[in-house]
Amino acid sequence: MANETICALATATGGALGIIRISGPQTLEILSRVFSKNLTDAKPNTIHYGHIKEENEVVDEVLVSIFRAPHSYTGEDAAEISCHGSSYILKKVLELLVKSGCRMAEPGEYTQRAFLNGKMDLSQAEAVADLIASSNKATHQMAMSQLRGHFSSELAQLREQLLKLTSLLELELDFSDHEDLEFADRSELLELTKLIDKHITRLALSFETGQALKQGIPVAIVGKTNVGKSTLLNALLKDDRAIVSDIHGTTRDTIEDTIDIQGITFRFIDTAGIRQTTDEVEQIGITRTYNAIEKARIVLWLIDAIPTTEEIKEMRERCADKSLIIIQNKIDKFSKESAADLFSNLSPLTSYILSISAKYGLGLDTLETAIYQAANIPALQDSDVIVSNARHYDALVRAHESLNRVLEGMNQQLSGDLLSEDLRLTLDTLSEITGGQITPNEVLGNIFKNFCVGK
Amino acid sequence: MANETICALATATGGALGIIRISGPQTLEILSRVFSKNLTDAKPNTIHYGHIKEENEVVDEVLVSIFRAPHSYTGEDAAEISCHGSSYILKKVLELLVKSGCRMAEPGEYTQRAFLNGKMDLSQAEAVADLIASSNKATHQMAMSQLRGHFSSELAQLREQLLKLTSLLELELDFSDHEDLEFADRSELLELTKLIDKHITRLALSFETGQALKQGIPVAIVGKTNVGKSTLLNALLKDDRAIVSDIHGTTRDTIEDTIDIQGITFRFIDTAGIRQTTDEVEQIGITRTYNAIEKARIVLWLIDAIPTTEEIKEMRERCADKSLIIIQNKIDKFSKESAADLFSNLSPLTSYILSISAKYGLGLDTLETAIYQAANIPALQDSDVIVSNARHYDALVRAHESLNRVLEGMNQQLSGDLLSEDLRLTLDTLSEITGGQITPNEVLGNIFKNFCVGK
Repeated sequence: MANETICALATATGGALGIIRISGPQTLEILSRVFSKNLTDAKPNTIHYGHIKEENEVVDEVLVSIFRAPHSYTGEDAAEISCHGSSYILKKVLELLVKSGCRMAEPGEYTQRAFLNGKMDLSQAEAVADLIASSNKATHQMAMSQLRGHFSSELAQLREQLLKLTSLLELELDFSDHEDLEFADRSELLELTKLIDKHITRLALSFETGQALKQGIPVAIVGKTNVGKSTLLNALLKDDRAIVSDIHGTTRDTIEDTIDIQGITFRFIDTAGIRQTTDEVEQIGITRTYNAIEKARIVLWLIDAIPTTEEIKEMRERCADKSLIIIQNKIDKFSKESAADLFSNLSPLTSYILSISAKYGLGLDTLETAIYQAANIPALQDSDVIVSNARHYDALVRAHESLNRVLEGMNQQLSGDLLSEDLRLTLDTLSEITGGQITPNEVLGNIFKNFCVGK
Repeated sequence: MANETICALATATGGALGIIRISGPQTLEILSRVFSKNLTDAKPNTIHYGHIKEENEVVDEVLVSIFRAPHSYTGEDAAEISCHGSSYILKKVLELLVKSGCRMAEPGEYTQRAFLNGKMDLSQAEAVADLIASSNKATHQMAMSQLRGHFSSELAQLREQLLKLTSLLELELDFSDHEDLEFADRSELLELTKLIDKHITRLALSFETGQALKQGIPVAIVGKTNVGKSTLLNALLKDDRAIVSDIHGTTRDTIEDTIDIQGITFRFIDTAGIRQTTDEVEQIGITRTYNAIEKARIVLWLIDAIPTTEEIKEMRERCADKSLIIIQNKIDKFSKESAADLFSNLSPLTSYILSISAKYGLGLDTLETAIYQAANIPALQDSDVIVSNARHYDALVRAHESLNRVLEGMNQQLSGDLLSEDLRLTLDTLSEITGGQITPNEVLGNIFKNFCVGK
C-alpha cells in the first residue's frame, strides 16, 4: 500500500491556482509521462515550467515542484503541480495521473505517510488537521504548538521520568534484602511518582480549556421577551462578520452564531424560538432558558427592569459554577445612573454589571471585554501545551489512573514487582498519544478519516 | 505603481493548502522580513522550507518558491508561499506581508504586469481569465488555444499581409506614371485584400460559435402541460450532475440548469412556472413558449399525442432558423412503432424524431447525441482559433469594415494614397486585440477588473 503513488487536489476549487500533490516511489516516472519534460533526474527542491499533455493536446501550462525522499512532507519522492484553477483542468490532470499509474489519495493519506515514515509523531499528525481547521488565534496557537512538538517533548520528558522510576524500582528489587535502603528509595520514588502524576493531571485538566477553545466557549443570552436578546446577538454577530469578511472567500457556514473576541471563539446557545401559542408557554420558555444556562459557561442576563428577589435568587443558584454578566439594556431609554443603584445589592453575585443599548450599539465594546474576561482563558504562550484532542485526553486519564494505582501500592508498601505492571501500562498509555507503540490500523483509520483530501 | 510589490491569496480558501503570491522588485526583501531565512540571494526556481514569523511567534511552517525576473509569470521577482489552508493563517500571512511593505493586489494585477512586461500579449492575458473560468472541454480548448498564441499568430500573419499590401501600394505610387504596371499590381492587390478580408471575416464569424460555447448553447423544452417537460429536464440534469460531482468541491451554483454533452455546455431556457390562476393562462403559456423558442438555438418539442396540422405549421415557422428535435415522451405507455408512423409526414421539418421515457430514463443517451449533433459545433482541434471575446469581435468587425472601404476604393480605381488611411486603420484595429498599440488605461482597467484576485 505504501508502495503506491498517490495524487489529490490539495486546494479548494474556485481560485486562480489549484495545486495537485503526488507522493510515492513512482512520482517522477508518472509525472514524466504527462509532463512536457523528463523529470526522472530532477534535483530536489527545484521548480520546472512546462505543459501537462494528453496525447498531443495541452491540458495546462504548469509549474512542477520536485521533492526527493526523505526530504519531503511524506518522506517519499513527491511533487506538486501548480495548475490554473479551472475545474476542468484540475479534473483532467487528476484523471491523467490516475491513467498513468497514480491512485487517488484517501483523506489524510499524505500526513499518514509522513507519520509512518517517521517525519512526525501521531500527535503532530493530528495537529495538522487542527491547524488547517483553525480559524482564530487560540485554535491556531494550540495546533501550532502541538505540530511543533511541544506536547511531544513534554510526553518524552514524562516517559523519561517513568523509565527512571522503573529502573529505581528494579534497583530496589536487587537490594530488597537491605531494609534500610528500601525505605530511603521509597520516599524518593513516591516524590517522583507524585511529580509525574501532577504533570499528567495538569495536561489532562487543560483539556477543558482546549475543548472550549476548539468548539467555542458556550454563552447563553437569557432574559424576558422583548428585552432585546436577538438585537444584542445580532449586534455582536454583525460586528464580527465585518472582520471575518476581510479575507476573500472565507465562508462561515458551519460556524453560525459565533463571535471571535481577542482570538477566542464564543458560541451562542440558541435560546430563541419561543412562540406564544399555548398556555404552557411561560413554562416552556423557562425550561428552555434553564437548559441554555445549563450548557453555558458564560450567562448574559439581559434586563430592562429590576428583577424580583425570587428571580435573583433563582439565577444566583443556576449560575453558581458559571460567569454571570448582568446587562441593563436600552440605556437609550433609561438614565445611566439607575443601573449601578439598582444592582448594588447584587455585587456578590457577579463582578459584571453593564449598561448597553443593543439597538444603537452602545456599550458593546465593554461587553465584549467583559465576555472575554469571564471566559478566564489564560493568555497562551507560543509553547504552551493545551490538550484539545479527545484521544489524547482519554490516554492521559488512563495514564493518571494506572499511575494512581502505583501510588496506592507504594503507600501500601507493595514490593516493586507488584508495581511494575501499572508502571509499564502508564508508559504504554502515554506512548499511544505519539504513536510510539505500533498503532493499530483501526486507530490510524479513525484519526485520518477526518482529514481533508490532499493533506 | 509597477514598482510596488503586491501580494494576494491565489487559491480558494477551504483546502489543505493555500498559496500566497508575491510579485515586484521588493519581493525577496519583504519575504526575508517575515521568513525564518534570508532569501535575498535565493536562486531562481528553488524551494525553501521555513517558518513565517510574527515577532517570535510561528504563524506557519511553509514552503517558499522563488522566481527571479525576468523568468517569472509577471516578469518581475516573485515568490509563492505554500501555507496550511487555514483561514486564520492565510489572513495572518497576508497581514504580515502588507505590514512589511507589500500592497494587496488588484484583481488580475499579476496578469496585467505580465502583459506590461511583455510576457504575453493582451489577447493571451484575456485567455488566462477564460482558462480559469473554463469548466468543460470546449471552453478549455478555446482559452488554451488563445493563451498559447494561436490567435496572436493568425493576427500577426494578417498584419504581415496588410503591411505587404501597404508597401505594394507605396510601390504603385512610386511608379504611378507607368499605367501598365499599375493595373497589373491592382489585380494582385485586390486578390490579396480579398484574402485578408476573408480571413478576418472567418475569425469574426467564429464569434457566434465562441459565444455559444462560452455561455452554453440555449435549448428550449416546449410542449403541453403534463407532457413531461420538467421530468425530462431533471433526467438530463441528474445524469450530468453525477459526472460533475466527481471532483471534490466543485460547485455549480452559478450554472444551474446546464448539462455538458461531449464537452459542450447546453443551457436550458426556463419555460416552467405557468400557474393556472386566470383565464388568460393559455395565452400566457403560449407567449412564454414562443419567447423561449425565440432565444433558443435548439428546440426540444415534447409530445405525447399527434399535434394538429395547425400546431405543426406554427412550430415549423417558429423554428425556421433553429434545430428542432421532436420527442415522443412516455414510450412506456405507447407502442414504440407509433412514433415513426405518426411523424413520417413531418420529416422535411426535422431530421430528429425520438421516442423516450423521461420518467424511466429510456432513450436519453440517443437524445443527448441528437442535441449534440443539432448544436452543429465543428470538432475543435488544439490549434483552432475561435473568437469568444466581445472586445476581439468588435475589433474584427471594425477591421472588416475599414478593409471593405479599401476594397471599394480599389474597385473605384482610387489612387493608393486615398486607400492608405483605411489600410492603416485596419492595421491599428487588429493591433488593439493584442495590445500592440499603446492600450489606454481605461481599456486595461476594463479587461482586468473581471479577473479573480491572485492571478
